[in-house]
Amino acid sequence: MKDNFIETYKVTAPITLKDVETKVVIKKSDKKLNKIREDLGKLQDTMYAHDKYSVLVCLQGMDTAGKDSLIREVFKEFNVRGVVVHSFKVPTELELGHDFLWRHYIALPEHGKFGVFNRTHYENVLVTRVHPEYILNENLPTVNSVEDVNEAFWDSRFEQINNFEKHIASNGTIIFKFFLNLSKEEQKYRLLRRLEKQEKNWKFSAGDLKERQLWDQYQNCYEDVLNRTSKPHAPWYIIPADDKDTSRYIVAKIMYDTLIKYTDIEEPELDDKIKANLELYKEQLINE
Amino acid sequence: MKDNFIETYKVTAPITLKDVETKVVIKKSDKKLNKIREDLGKLQDTMYAHDKYSVLVCLQGMDTAGKDSLIREVFKEFNVRGVVVHSFKVPTELELGHDFLWRHYIALPEHGKFGVFNRTHYENVLVTRVHPEYILNENLPTVNSVEDVNEAFWDSRFEQINNFEKHIASNGTIIFKFFLNLSKEEQKYRLLRRLEKQEKNWKFSAGDLKERQLWDQYQNCYEDVLNRTSKPHAPWYIIPADDKDTSRYIVAKIMYDTLIKYTDIEEPELDDKIKANLELYKEQLINE
Repeated sequence: MKDNFIETYKVTAPITLKDVETKVVIKKSDKKLNKIREDLGKLQDTMYAHDKYSVLVCLQGMDTAGKDSLIREVFKEFNVRGVVVHSFKVPTELELGHDFLWRHYIALPEHGKFGVFNRTHYENVLVTRVHPEYILNENLPTVNSVEDVNEAFWDSRFEQINNFEKHIASNGTIIFKFFLNLSKEEQKYRLLRRLEKQEKNWKFSAGDLKERQLWDQYQNCYEDVLNRTSKPHAPWYIIPADDKDTSRYIVAKIMYDTLIKYTDIEEPELDDKIKANLELYKEQLINE
Repeated sequence: MKDNFIETYKVTAPITLKDVETKVVIKKSDKKLNKIREDLGKLQDTMYAHDKYSVLVCLQGMDTAGKDSLIREVFKEFNVRGVVVHSFKVPTELELGHDFLWRHYIALPEHGKFGVFNRTHYENVLVTRVHPEYILNENLPTVNSVEDVNEAFWDSRFEQINNFEKHIASNGTIIFKFFLNLSKEEQKYRLLRRLEKQEKNWKFSAGDLKERQLWDQYQNCYEDVLNRTSKPHAPWYIIPADDKDTSRYIVAKIMYDTLIKYTDIEEPELDDKIKANLELYKEQLINE
């Protein structure tokens, strides 16, 4: 297998999710990750000094797909200064008082930084699509009953999401969207382990099993998301997630290979005025 | 030297800053840091699951005291999920439209997380005390000219800061305040290096030299801060900062030794309802 993961995993044409592999095992991917995450960390330092691009990393996947541990491992060599992780949960009253993108908008990374969304604005066309009654909590002027949450509603929501991403991309945000593609069988195994291992126990919620029963509906919604919102400026990557080491390495490599192509990312030149006075400043310090 | 850094460096009685050592070299402190920061990272994982305490780490120090690199090194083994760094710069118009604590308040860490303030709310009794005209930008009803920025004004500000910290401590925030105590001579050396090394060039600002000329005034203000705001629930530690490896190790060790005393920090027990149904859930998964 070639290491061109960008080409291999990017969604560039309509896909059928059930035909996409969930298990790929790349040998020594843990060692390879060690190397690439160091390179990513160094690149981030330069981007921090450059202070022009923001990077938004969106992670989606079913429960136990490995989002949390992927964040821990992929960003391990980052200066903690340069990356902010936001885990989006059930929206609060305050958040529901605003449009559905608001809480994501205010959490966007500033120039020179990485923002990681652990679950993202896409939950608004995933969990709410499987449970359309949740939309009623948003108190929208056009939605008075579940019947109003129709195809036209979803069309509009997809358009809004696409416009949002286009806007932030136009203003200097580099967007990565990773779908951690887990098999139903592997989820079963991971949920059982969560129930069996005492130190993983606390992570278990009975809701996990309920949502698992809606697996097929979620897969359909994910498929729609992947096909309708993968754009050149904000591509989706479908990452085989049954092997954790491999999925982490693929994600890190895709980020690195993408970012390294931005040839203008470099430490800023010294201000002309400072440059002209460099010797003067040195003398001032030496002779004080 | 004993390793009881809490006792050695905590401000518990009035100090005179010029009598406090800026250079301490502990052998192999880089190796010792490697170990302690791993322990800290593990402790953070548990605190994240426990989800009750927040930790606020306040860093102050003159330019080049090593705040940025200390953050990079001390938090290196943290899951990036668990720590958020805020670097406070010159207040923006929006921030100046609120009271001086507002921007710090909204940046406080949530339960289970570490927040690092790189420069802190103490700048409001440091840089503004050296440059009292800056206070006029805050548009306070009681301050119409620099003459109004008198001792009573500073007394009140210190009281407000102490009350703020007491409040957040009472609500579950564990507070560390580290003053990186650099010698004037070492700063000279570090500024010269910043001018000489091309890859460090971009960090240099002519303002650094201007503030250096006010060194003694800053030291007086720091001394006042340390003596007036070190409290049992929010102690200041004066960290000798001329040797970077040592200062990082001391900071990490103080955090670890403090946090490990919170014996109630543990992963949460499984919810009783889930516990009662554990076998049922397993069966449900296995037999589906």
